[in-house]
Amino acid sequence: MENARFADGAAYVRGRFVPMAEATIPITDWGFTRSDVVYDVVHVVNDGFFRLQDHLERFEIAMRKRRLQPAESLQQIEDILHRCVALSGLKDAFVSMSTLRGRPRIYGSRRPADCENHFMAYAIPWIDVIPRDVQERGAHLWIASTPRVPDASVDPTIKNYQWNDLTSGLLEAHDNGFDTTVLCDADGFVTEGPGFNVFMVKDGKVFTPDRGSLHGITRRSVLELCADMGVEAAVATIRRADFEDADEVFVATTAGGVMPVSRVNRTILANDRPGPLSLALKALYWKRHEEGWHRTEVRKELAEWPSGAAV
Amino acid sequence: MENARFADGAAYVRGRFVPMAEATIPITDWGFTRSDVVYDVVHVVNDGFFRLQDHLERFEIAMRKRRLQPAESLQQIEDILHRCVALSGLKDAFVSMSTLRGRPRIYGSRRPADCENHFMAYAIPWIDVIPRDVQERGAHLWIASTPRVPDASVDPTIKNYQWNDLTSGLLEAHDNGFDTTVLCDADGFVTEGPGFNVFMVKDGKVFTPDRGSLHGITRRSVLELCADMGVEAAVATIRRADFEDADEVFVATTAGGVMPVSRVNRTILANDRPGPLSLALKALYWKRHEEGWHRTEVRKELAEWPSGAAV
Repeated sequence: MENARFADGAAYVRGRFVPMAEATIPITDWGFTRSDVVYDVVHVVNDGFFRLQDHLERFEIAMRKRRLQPAESLQQIEDILHRCVALSGLKDAFVSMSTLRGRPRIYGSRRPADCENHFMAYAIPWIDVIPRDVQERGAHLWIASTPRVPDASVDPTIKNYQWNDLTSGLLEAHDNGFDTTVLCDADGFVTEGPGFNVFMVKDGKVFTPDRGSLHGITRRSVLELCADMGVEAAVATIRRADFEDADEVFVATTAGGVMPVSRVNRTILANDRPGPLSLALKALYWKRHEEGWHRTEVRKELAEWPSGAAV
Repeated sequence: MENARFADGAAYVRGRFVPMAEATIPITDWGFTRSDVVYDVVHVVNDGFFRLQDHLERFEIAMRKRRLQPAESLQQIEDILHRCVALSGLKDAFVSMSTLRGRPRIYGSRRPADCENHFMAYAIPWIDVIPRDVQERGAHLWIASTPRVPDASVDPTIKNYQWNDLTSGLLEAHDNGFDTTVLCDADGFVTEGPGFNVFMVKDGKVFTPDRGSLHGITRRSVLELCADMGVEAAVATIRRADFEDADEVFVATTAGGVMPVSRVNRTILANDRPGPLSLALKALYWKRHEEGWHRTEVRKELAEWPSGAAV
């Protein structure tokens, strides 16, 4: 009964499990005021996490690289994710984890090392990055005029919330009547979009950018599925002109999986519909889910712990 | 009596005035999860705001450029800032204002235009970016190896919380036993530090970088004070080598004013002490405050409104 409180999702903040409406951070947390935070997102389909260990591993590396160390161990973090999903009662969920710099223990300090880092997580109803109806016709992807922040300035393999360049591209895409955007770097090489990796198909081969991009877990799945299918796939340098000249384009992310694109700027791909290889990869991606590939069953019994208690 | 609740500062969040401890944002606000937020900071000294209209003007431009539109008018925002200070009872204060993208009105939307933007503000006890004792001996400034994010990717004149590159530099500075950092861009030109503009003095002339930097209000004050003193000053392209070869270096920001530097990496400036022109500018900056330059008296009577009420 009590779990009705968690109908909109369940969060873990400052050592306690709370409904989403109560999940907040102070307005002076450096996770906000300096965007000094790393995060990761894993999904749950039909009561099973997908590639949970891969997400936890990437998250741990990100924390270490940014010198963020919460009180919780990685094992406790895993338990917390299970419990958020269990409390929410969701069969399909979008599950976020983040570690924030926090606030200095000494008032007025400007030293990151003085801050009390803290871990947060939440499970909320599934969100596709691109709406289902748009996925059906194929997304219209706008190549932004804003260049992607260079890897040397902000490491894109450390999943972060600094989306200013991506948001600029998204605004421009919407202004032009497009669904979403992809950014090129200052040298004109293709990078990524707001929350997803991009792929192009040319002459039966699959390519995804080697720069300016997260090393996506779904990207990894796509590369593995290509190998399964006997399709050649590579992480490569992709020029804008080659991307616009692709036979097919699709995007991939945890929040939606493999999502076909039917237009890139004014270029109409594959007869203005999702391409055949994109559709085959999408189908295989979800078939593998049903087969239990990389699946970790959600430990639903964790919902029965006293809610509000620390982990 | 009631205002004892505001002893740690007073905030305005979601249309209500609350003590700092109650000032929070949802963990799913795009102001946090996309760092989709603009902000500004103004200071209060001895019951007077300094250059309040200049800060409000810059803040309004930033909001417009990022297409952020809160419910409050600029006049209301000004009233809110007065009231935060009045409620806090602080004679000297650090006053922050920010507008966040907020959350989509439609669950799952990824469109910025679907979000409900909101304005927040708070007044807290004064913070110097560089501690007073460090200012006395002159700050030790580390030139970071991380390049500043290019202006084309993230406009530095729109005050933002995307501090990842600056934080990387700060961590490196602290590792090397330095107080704070300044970043160069990928071409080796000097930009800014975490929360401040930098200046160099060479042959009696003052220079401040023309790129990768906020158009600081304190920077503007410094340029005006130079004119008052008959000192030549310019916004210019500054190469790293020239910066290291300066006669003096100082930094400037709302949170601390003019703050001298005595070392830049391994280079010891001005006999390892604050330089004479830096000290003269610092003294004049505070003298002008006492004289009421650009001063707006805090409207303390606003503390008497029913607390918790909307503006």
